[in-house]
Amino acid sequence: MTHPRYTRTVAALPETVPFVGPETLERGRGAPFDARIGANESVFGPSPKAMAAMRDAVAECWKYGDAPSHDLRQALAAHHGIAPENIVVGEGIDGLLGDLVRLLIEPGDAVVTSDGAYPTFNYHVAGYGGVLHKVPFRDDREDLPALLAKAGETGAKLVYFVNPDNPMGTWSTAEEITAALADLPEGCLLILDEAYAEFAPEGVVPQIAIDHPGVVRMRTFSKAHGMAGARIGYAMGAPGLIRAYDKVRNHFGVNRTAQIGALAALEDTAWLGHVRAEVTAACDRIADIARAHGLSPLPTATNFVAMDLGGNGDLTRALVAALGKRGIFVRMGFVPPLDRCLRVSAGTKADLDAFEAALPAALEEARAAVSATA
Amino acid sequence: MTHPRYTRTVAALPETVPFVGPETLERGRGAPFDARIGANESVFGPSPKAMAAMRDAVAECWKYGDAPSHDLRQALAAHHGIAPENIVVGEGIDGLLGDLVRLLIEPGDAVVTSDGAYPTFNYHVAGYGGVLHKVPFRDDREDLPALLAKAGETGAKLVYFVNPDNPMGTWSTAEEITAALADLPEGCLLILDEAYAEFAPEGVVPQIAIDHPGVVRMRTFSKAHGMAGARIGYAMGAPGLIRAYDKVRNHFGVNRTAQIGALAALEDTAWLGHVRAEVTAACDRIADIARAHGLSPLPTATNFVAMDLGGNGDLTRALVAALGKRGIFVRMGFVPPLDRCLRVSAGTKADLDAFEAALPAALEEARAAVSATA
Repeated sequence: MTHPRYTRTVAALPETVPFVGPETLERGRGAPFDARIGANESVFGPSPKAMAAMRDAVAECWKYGDAPSHDLRQALAAHHGIAPENIVVGEGIDGLLGDLVRLLIEPGDAVVTSDGAYPTFNYHVAGYGGVLHKVPFRDDREDLPALLAKAGETGAKLVYFVNPDNPMGTWSTAEEITAALADLPEGCLLILDEAYAEFAPEGVVPQIAIDHPGVVRMRTFSKAHGMAGARIGYAMGAPGLIRAYDKVRNHFGVNRTAQIGALAALEDTAWLGHVRAEVTAACDRIADIARAHGLSPLPTATNFVAMDLGGNGDLTRALVAALGKRGIFVRMGFVPPLDRCLRVSAGTKADLDAFEAALPAALEEARAAVSATA
Repeated sequence: MTHPRYTRTVAALPETVPFVGPETLERGRGAPFDARIGANESVFGPSPKAMAAMRDAVAECWKYGDAPSHDLRQALAAHHGIAPENIVVGEGIDGLLGDLVRLLIEPGDAVVTSDGAYPTFNYHVAGYGGVLHKVPFRDDREDLPALLAKAGETGAKLVYFVNPDNPMGTWSTAEEITAALADLPEGCLLILDEAYAEFAPEGVVPQIAIDHPGVVRMRTFSKAHGMAGARIGYAMGAPGLIRAYDKVRNHFGVNRTAQIGALAALEDTAWLGHVRAEVTAACDRIADIARAHGLSPLPTATNFVAMDLGGNGDLTRALVAALGKRGIFVRMGFVPPLDRCLRVSAGTKADLDAFEAALPAALEEARAAVSATA
């Protein structure tokens, strides 16, 4: 019998998944979660206008989507004060990151990211045979000057930087980013992942010339716009880079209903304001709950709060498990030393009530589990 | 200023798009089409039950989709009498083809397809640096024995075969396919693209052991299920190949609403029967219209009819343009000698009325244009 002959890169890849999703965890525990506050989704949902537009669009989903996402790109261009030629719409930032890595990275090429930043980016880099160089967080923040220095040192083609950051919720200021960019090495492209930009206070999102050939920015409708399941996001950058996407992307890959919903969501600025206010209140409450239980919440510019449990990550792992048993889905820092932190997404009142109710016993159980193995 | 350093494969790629979509054509002509019968979409729409399920699901689109598409894969497994481990769900066949090419093809690797088969497959092969070897259609049908012979000759890792075929609508019988498979070369994977399988009469879709390591089958909800814009399809094959997808695919890339809609569509067999009957009647009428105007319709096992205009493709190109001017969106064979044929998708009564009304003047204009340049 014949067998497929995989590429050398694929043959060497492990069978891993960047994230185990909440439905998979629910099937594992045999019951749905009571509070889904682990994936930084927006429990406040999409704009009612976006929902109405998507419901109306369902009857026309027999049509393929519009390959260039023309109407949405026009609206995004107006929104950001740039040209449609500066924008490519894709299947969420995950899809846009994958295509970008494909555009630049051949086996052996150097890529730089922070140690503990987005695992899906690392997955894409490994998937194209790139060699990842990791820079530690500094004071629980991604360290752009150190990332760019490492890029210079390794000749990296690509640097990944998230601002505001996930999983810590921290940020660099616009001023810090602009200053650091002066040291962007020749031939290096900086990915500025701004998935959480809509939650950031003023002074966090930098002004960068849209035609800067060394920077590409990523945005999404998955977070503040509450459309994670719709799979739609966009990259903004110099026209040459945007056109390069057209050489490899799945041209008809974006869901038509999502295109229509995203356009309506973008226009509904009142809903975005409402979500921001809900998120701020929820994050304040998460921080209060953390402090009431002796845990130290980090400041956040996102829709989640990282809270410091100290230690080597064992207590955090035990707490994630103990909360999971009690119907609370949360996550934690992905690697040491960020794994001292539990990551709790902004929830509804009911979500946070459930979290608050479950936390004391879960903490007790987690502490007991850790001392038992200590 | 710094510039991105693309891979050698990407740097050599042309800036082409496999298909110019109908919305792009509409923007070009400054008006919507009256009849959208050019992309083999299902104008009869999705199942009303699928539409209801999708409308209900919109409010939950703040949640990411289920990465393994568990429920849908369970249902598909039951439907096909196979295991969920034999199925991977992806962003339509386009997305699944792209990932499959990525799994197998390094720059310089040989791939075989029919000359005039699906351009998007060729796009993916070029996008990963593969070398395409093309085999002519024989009697307007894809020629599987010749494809496999060419694969043996070139050492191809991958062979692409569509049955029933697009753009001709013709087919090989199940018996012919099974017989040809005996000559599948060692180390060669056959892609059996069955996007139109639900329209095929009995005796066209072959029985192949699902664990056959040399065959992968592709199916979609874009055609008979009327959900092209939802972007959801699946590949069926040996568990090892299916697991390989998990090494590279965009795990959370499938739209959540599409997952829910596809599950409902799969269960609504009554609607599928209705669509099949509508498609048969529409294709019969398209063939009648063709004959009434002296054009020769090919037999079809799909939701479209290819009609032979003869000549070198110039008349067909002129007719596509003349119909487009009159608000009728149709396509044609992609390369010689298939470009003698106009391809008209099954339409509603109104679509086909419009096509029938526009055809005489369009034909006259096209013939005049061709003689003027002859």
